[in-house]
Amino acid sequence: MTDIAFPSWPDVAPQLIEVAAGRRPADTVIRKGIWVNVHTREQLPDHDIAIVAGRIAYVGPDASYCTGPDTEVIEADGRYMIPGLCDAHMHIESGMLTPAEFARAVIPHGTTSMFTDPHEIANVLGLEGVRLMHDEALLQPVNIFTQMPSCAPSAPGLETTGYEISPEDVAEAMSWPGIIGLGEMMNFPGVAAGDPKMLAEIAATQRAGKTVGGHYASPDLGPDFAAYVAGGPADDHEGTCEADAIARMRQGMRAMVRLGSAWYDVEAQITAITEKGLDPRNFILCTDDCHSGTLVNDGHMNRVVRHAIDCGCDPVIALQMATINTATHFGLERDIGSLTPGRRADVILTSDLKTLPIEVVMARGQIVAKDGQITVDCPHLDWPDSARGTVHLGHELSAADFEISAPDGANAVTANVIGVVENQAPTKALQAELPVVDGLVEGNQEVCQIALVERHRATGGVTNAFVSGFGYNGRMAMASTVAHDSHHMIVVGTDRDQMALAANRLAEVGGGITIFRDGAELALVELPIAGLMSDSPATEVAAKAQKMMEAMETCGCSLNNAYMQHSLLALVVIPELRISDLGLVDVRSFEQIPVIVSAQPA
Amino acid sequence: MTDIAFPSWPDVAPQLIEVAAGRRPADTVIRKGIWVNVHTREQLPDHDIAIVAGRIAYVGPDASYCTGPDTEVIEADGRYMIPGLCDAHMHIESGMLTPAEFARAVIPHGTTSMFTDPHEIANVLGLEGVRLMHDEALLQPVNIFTQMPSCAPSAPGLETTGYEISPEDVAEAMSWPGIIGLGEMMNFPGVAAGDPKMLAEIAATQRAGKTVGGHYASPDLGPDFAAYVAGGPADDHEGTCEADAIARMRQGMRAMVRLGSAWYDVEAQITAITEKGLDPRNFILCTDDCHSGTLVNDGHMNRVVRHAIDCGCDPVIALQMATINTATHFGLERDIGSLTPGRRADVILTSDLKTLPIEVVMARGQIVAKDGQITVDCPHLDWPDSARGTVHLGHELSAADFEISAPDGANAVTANVIGVVENQAPTKALQAELPVVDGLVEGNQEVCQIALVERHRATGGVTNAFVSGFGYNGRMAMASTVAHDSHHMIVVGTDRDQMALAANRLAEVGGGITIFRDGAELALVELPIAGLMSDSPATEVAAKAQKMMEAMETCGCSLNNAYMQHSLLALVVIPELRISDLGLVDVRSFEQIPVIVSAQPA
Repeated sequence: MTDIAFPSWPDVAPQLIEVAAGRRPADTVIRKGIWVNVHTREQLPDHDIAIVAGRIAYVGPDASYCTGPDTEVIEADGRYMIPGLCDAHMHIESGMLTPAEFARAVIPHGTTSMFTDPHEIANVLGLEGVRLMHDEALLQPVNIFTQMPSCAPSAPGLETTGYEISPEDVAEAMSWPGIIGLGEMMNFPGVAAGDPKMLAEIAATQRAGKTVGGHYASPDLGPDFAAYVAGGPADDHEGTCEADAIARMRQGMRAMVRLGSAWYDVEAQITAITEKGLDPRNFILCTDDCHSGTLVNDGHMNRVVRHAIDCGCDPVIALQMATINTATHFGLERDIGSLTPGRRADVILTSDLKTLPIEVVMARGQIVAKDGQITVDCPHLDWPDSARGTVHLGHELSAADFEISAPDGANAVTANVIGVVENQAPTKALQAELPVVDGLVEGNQEVCQIALVERHRATGGVTNAFVSGFGYNGRMAMASTVAHDSHHMIVVGTDRDQMALAANRLAEVGGGITIFRDGAELALVELPIAGLMSDSPATEVAAKAQKMMEAMETCGCSLNNAYMQHSLLALVVIPELRISDLGLVDVRSFEQIPVIVSAQPA
Repeated sequence: MTDIAFPSWPDVAPQLIEVAAGRRPADTVIRKGIWVNVHTREQLPDHDIAIVAGRIAYVGPDASYCTGPDTEVIEADGRYMIPGLCDAHMHIESGMLTPAEFARAVIPHGTTSMFTDPHEIANVLGLEGVRLMHDEALLQPVNIFTQMPSCAPSAPGLETTGYEISPEDVAEAMSWPGIIGLGEMMNFPGVAAGDPKMLAEIAATQRAGKTVGGHYASPDLGPDFAAYVAGGPADDHEGTCEADAIARMRQGMRAMVRLGSAWYDVEAQITAITEKGLDPRNFILCTDDCHSGTLVNDGHMNRVVRHAIDCGCDPVIALQMATINTATHFGLERDIGSLTPGRRADVILTSDLKTLPIEVVMARGQIVAKDGQITVDCPHLDWPDSARGTVHLGHELSAADFEISAPDGANAVTANVIGVVENQAPTKALQAELPVVDGLVEGNQEVCQIALVERHRATGGVTNAFVSGFGYNGRMAMASTVAHDSHHMIVVGTDRDQMALAANRLAEVGGGITIFRDGAELALVELPIAGLMSDSPATEVAAKAQKMMEAMETCGCSLNNAYMQHSLLALVVIPELRISDLGLVDVRSFEQIPVIVSAQPA
């Protein structure tokens, strides 16, 4: 258990006062910048910032009176001084990186505060996993606040997770130093139905004075939405259109609006501010999910703010959406989110407020990145063996584990098929006529096999079904232990031998992603921590992920971002058809359905 | 000890959800109003509000689906539905009314939440007095949050209070159910100097996650101000000009802006919003001090909001300044301050958003006032004897107690004189040549006597000095146990016999205000609770106060609002010259000075 907390304002108030009063020199002074004031929405040239003990002591026209011989002086030279950027809701695991490596990847982009929900590891390792993420988060030189995952399993009764989060777990976590609230309450039907377990989690969070994250993933803004709002979630990041953002803000929630690697929700919603003219104070930017490739190539919250500005948002308002609005939402506005006395000295220097080049990043008074290069260490936790060996298959798999038997005497069958749709999280519930060979149902040019391989309790269970849309050909299989949200193992393939090879390979390396073709491994991304994350640098993980995506293409898949489709095929909370360890699930009715609908006799 | 808390959101979430989902009927539905949305800054016609268990369950276009046969239906008939108004900083004692009677006076004006600092009673009765105010506050049908007084005495070393508030007192109070934060930290020189006691009080508040109130009563925005800000106060209501409001907001404080009975600070500061265009989210309205006459004749927060609108502020922005801005500041935005689900059902119906007639007031789902008439009970605490018998003079006073001896052989003296200035809290440090008669210094046509009579510890101490500016003539004296901030007794008079009569009279009735002329009492306002408050209705107290002011006029005083001048003459934190139980105090240098400067020999 780690319990490192950055000294609080009252801890260091005597030093802050001394510096502001001119009785002792600051540790650091930033000179002559344009103070971007996110409280008043002003740009104020020729301001200085004086810093001591990692916090801001003074912001004003002239800090020379608190500058001593040992004060480090940083010349802003007329550049903009903006607060470090905040990501209001995100999953570190989506980067396939540990908190330390994630931090290392995003610090040069100016992200100095993150609100992260370790929902994925909670499904694998439960409260212990959450605590490990939380502890590594607290080791970092930037602020990583943890949202306690609320929904493991996401869909009770439709899947079996490695661990089930209870209201007691939530209540316990609320006392941890880095816990800021409850992670997205995605069981929105449960809240609207008054599910006592969900309400107990929300109550434990509210009673601790913390923030309840929301997740209302439905276009229905009628009574179900009203009931969800009445249940207590304080924000929601599942909106996709202007009406969604407006409805949430009107109802006293904060609209969190995403630009992730695969989420493009800002452009459609920011018109609530830029065109409809609503008060922007409750509009907050976040990423939700960013792949390592995005972090390496495109940026993080700087990418989101830039995009908001490109969508026509005033730059200072866009910055408010990634700084003070976020801080206020989490009750942290006197700690982060603005360049004002008492706050952590999280400062970015940038020479252009529209294109937002991140030239210098300071966190807690220390320069952490310069010109895109990190300048500090991001310490790793000593992850225990229990977090590393998490792929428990029960036995070595063989092609037989992936067989789908046809009804006796059938010549062909009509089967339910999960239909992948390019660039969309929802799937289609399709049906296809498939041939029977030697008593086994086989795929065809359009349809291949999918399997959900149980990996938490070593039951040896394999659920087999069919999927279409990837375009795979030849003898191949791809397997991944990133398999939202219960994170068993998803294997998709055209050939049962390859499927067994891929599954066994992931058991061998402790999890990750692999692709086999004709008995050879084309690509491997090792994710040894919980089968979800690597403790290697983002550049390495991104390179391997790139190779993996190229291998998918080699195998015939031409979908954009098709790995995301693969990893979401077990997400039994998003329509229409998914696979779980319990069977094929129709997420429109929340029922299990059979793989084989009917048989055509020979 | 009383510990009544209104049920929290999680306490009643199951009911809220049931109503919002349409599975059970609401207690009350308000139909077809214009929803004034202080989150989005919109006016939305044709909306309904459904209420259950005192909280809002649903706001939307049609609540008929949550209306049952027993649901009380209130027709808004196209009127505006606005959130109950919040007074962000105030002293109930200024109304000379107990919390119950204060609430009864302001509820018909639409005030449903108050943030009150019982600083006056703290000076008389210490923590016990604060607890009594807090307990009566929690009995009321509206929300009265208590700010723990920070500075008793206000000026340590310059006065002796009935009780000294310690950091331990502050830490203890933070656990009481109705405590919302620390009351105005008026020892601003102490904070800027790093006074450990003041910093310990601030730290205890911040560590409890509560809000530190500020009070920086100086026009100096240099290093002293910077040091004060660095010390942690989160708001300030002492600004008087636009630059003050802007400086506070830029520094990450909230500018609280007053319209009290005698404070007119809105017009000069609201231009920061209306003309300079700053983000209004950190601009908050309050009253600070309202006399009972203002409450009876002019209003309360409705008067302030109306005034802000008259000053050119957009009505919805003005309402934000008295609702959601305040709630957010105190970390209560999910409990009060907007008409959205989960919040306490504090609703005003008004037919005009500019003139703001307060037609219906609902608090916690119950109608508490209609057309200016209160419709509920405001329960009184059973105040203990210790709170009622607080005027301890030690002995019956006589004219001799008010004698000021001249130096031996003097024929006349030059004396320091407190110069009252009409309509201003600061006094002038004057000097006057005064005659000596029978060895005693006497007043003249301009100058009369002032005495500070110790009343907390029955020391029998009387500090005598001179004051000018009231214009009194004839043989008169006026005495008051409202004597900021230590609340001994201030006696001002032209005649020592009348002074003794007045002082003894207040000892007899347990405190209040009295005026004697030629041996007869012209007016009396009994304030039996701590010598500060009456538990009679505001109308009665206002009538007596009116009579008292007329009596002052009868005695020759033509100053506007002269009673305020009288009661502030011992306020040893506001320049230039004041009186305390320890002597005459020069508040420019924070030093005691003699009454007699020099003597002219006979």
